[in-house]
Formats: sequence, structure tokens, C-alpha cells
Amino acid sequence: MAVITDYIPISTKGFTDIIDITPEIRASLKNSKLRSGTLTVFISGSTAGVTTIEYEPGLLKDLPEALEKIAPQDKRYHHDDTWGDGNGFSHVRAAMVGCSLTVPFTEGRLLLGTWQQVAVIDFDNRSRQREVVVQIMGEE
Amino acid sequence: MAVITDYIPISTKGFTDIIDITPEIRASLKNSKLRSGTLTVFISGSTAGVTTIEYEPGLLKDLPEALEKIAPQDKRYHHDDTWGDGNGFSHVRAAMVGCSLTVPFTEGRLLLGTWQQVAVIDFDNRSRQREVVVQIMGEE
Amino acid sequence: MAVITDYIPISTKGFTDIIDITPEIRASLKNSKLRSGTLTVFISGSTAGVTTIEYEPGLLKDLPEALEKIAPQDKRYHHDDTWGDGNGFSHVRAAMVGCSLTVPFTEGRLLLGTWQQVAVIDFDNRSRQREVVVQIMGEE
Repeated sequence: MAVITDYIPISTKGFTDIIDITPEIRASLKNSKLRSGTLTVFISGSTAGVTTIEYEPGLLKDLPEALEKIAPQDKRYHHDDTWGDGNGFSHVRAAMVGCSLTVPFTEGRLLLGTWQQVAVIDFDNRSRQREVVVQIMGEE
Repeated sequence: MAVITDYIPISTKGFTDIIDITPEIRASLKNSKLRSGTLTVFISGSTAGVTTIEYEPGLLKDLPEALEKIAPQDKRYHHDDTWGDGNGFSHVRAAMVGCSLTVPFTEGRLLLGTWQQVAVIDFDNRSRQREVVVQIMGEE
Repeated sequence: MAVITDYIPISTKGFTDIIDITPEIRASLKNSKLRSGTLTVFISGSTAGVTTIEYEPGLLKDLPEALEKIAPQDKRYHHDDTWGDGNGFSHVRAAMVGCSLTVPFTEGRLLLGTWQQVAVIDFDNRSRQREVVVQIMGEE
């Protein structure tokens, strides 16, 4: 058993920008030489999330529209009373979607579906540079 | 430490059909002979999710009703502009609920509550045959 | 590789009470002596959840307000037809937020952001005593 930690740098536009990181995590897994185990994708920070989605242009609009109902961008948030940085909606969306995803792999291959991509979503109200944590635990 | 991967076949009706797979994952854990570690439940595909719920008839209606507010079935989705398969609501619900769940176990027993079942939810707009991934990592 | 399981007792007020358990899980990790791996936070029971959030007074109001839209407290739930305990909203919120969170660590340090705390949310409609499961898996 081994633990390997990688970091994937991403540039986002914020405002529920959805980034497909599947190629990068596949590369991390290949480099790890591990055959069987779990790969955990984790976002440090409280205004981004991670989930899986079929990465096609329609859903890249549909998911933000659904989140707009849960936490509208133009609402006044109590968070602004604390910091005044205007990204209360970002925090609420991130807490709902979650910052961590665990994907099993066998025979060196992630058990994702064909139309299932791992996506980081940046909910912040500005462009950001982030590093996504990829931690692989398993056996050769 | 060992890694064991199992697959649980399920038949669903789609349309936010909620399936209790707790007995099957308990059987997987028992067969694994592992005593302490994590069990990850993962759904391949982008129109299903996994969570825990008290599996009783009332909540099997309440949870779909809440999801209907987040991603209504009769709304027009951009996803349909891409594929025309009418299941945009399924994808949005799946991305919100998430496709992965990690449950710790000790002394060969999952640390679930008495009224807490592990449930796969099929959000697709048709019946499906699926295989749920159960990966157990831990020590004897 | 080793697996270590800890339990953190918490007292909650219920009604979407959000509890910061970051200091306690940091202490668990330190005691474990493990340097690299994953820490899983898990809530037994079907009326509580776990996520990360910037733990500041504004968001402690904003997140419950968003959940009130998804699963309002004063709505009549089918769950009440089964048990009559009036906490249908608690179950729906818990199923949406999720009961499990996996955080990677390296060099003995959780890879959380500076303003990102691990929070247990008690959605039940009364005060509760709970034990949060913290399971640490990794290598020295």
C-alpha cells in the first residue's frame, strides 16, 4: 500500500466556472503505478467544489442555473456583513456541492462512466488560480 | 492492508428511484474479512447518485419532491440541445447529490446509524440496469 | 499503513446547528502520528451532515436560509405519516448535504484552506448528543 499526493494547477473564471480535470487525474493515476485503490480529489478553500458531470456545453449552463435557485448571486447575504466581499452565494454553493470526491480504481483504471467527468467548480466571484489536491491510495 | 472491489447489480425504475443497498454492502464487507477501514460506494455514470437516508416510504416521496424544486422534471434544459434525450434534470440532480460515499467500519461493522441506510438514487428518465461499485480498503 | 478510528462527542441544538470540529480532528490526526493519507469524517444517523465552510457568523445564517428553501421546516412531509416526529425536513437536508467527508493530509497536516473549517450540521428538530466518527488511514 502506498499514498501519493499530486497537485493540479487550474485557472478559473469564477462565477460557477466548471473545469474538467479528468485528463489530469488520469495522468496522476498512471504516474502513480498503483493498480487498485481510491483516488481522492479535494479542493482547499471554501468557495469551490468538486463533483462529476457529463462535461458538455448544455449541462455547463444547466447546473449553474439550478445553483442560482439554491443560492442566487444577487441576494444579500449575511456573509457580506462580516467581510463585504460579495461572495456569500459562492460559499453557500460550495458547502452544498462539497469539496471532496473519492473515485475507486482497479487495474490502474478509474471506475468512471464513459460520459462521467470529474469537475471542479469555482463558485467565487472573481477569477482564481487554484491547486486541486489529488491523493491516490492503494496497492501495485 | 488490502483493497477489495465488488460490484452490486441493481435494477431501477429511474425517475429518482431510491434503492436500499445496505444488505448487499454489508455482505461485501463480511466476505472481505477486513475488520477496520473504509468502504466506498461509487456509481459509474452521470445520472445517478448515492447518499444515506432512513429508508421508509415517506422519505422515498419527500426527497424526490425536494429535488423536483432544485431541478424540475418538466423544465427545458440546455442539455437537451446537445442530446435531446430529455434527462437534463437527471444530470443536474446527480451532480448535486454526488456519486460517491465513504463509510468507515471497525470490528467488521459499518458505522451506520440504526435508521441510516445506504441508498443509490437513479435520476435517469427510464429504467436502468446498473452496477454499483463497492470498494473496501482496510486491515484484518 | 494503519487505520485509526476516533470518536468526537458533540452537543448540538438541532435545527441546522453548525458545529466546527476542525480543532478536534486536527488533534486526532496529531495523536495518530500518521504523516500521509486520508481522514474521513462520518456522521452516524440520518438527520445530520458534514461539509466544509468558512466558519463565520454570517454564513452560519446563510447556509440554513438556503436549506430552508430546499426543505422548508414548516412544510408537511410524508415522513410524518410514518413516524409523526416532525423532522422530515431534517432527513431531506441531511440526504442532500451528505454524511461523509474525506480530507487528505500530508506531512501530518490536513490540506484544508485557511478559511475552510470542517463542520457537522445537526438538522434534527431537537438538541442532540452525537459522536462524530473520525477515521484516519495512512502511513507514518
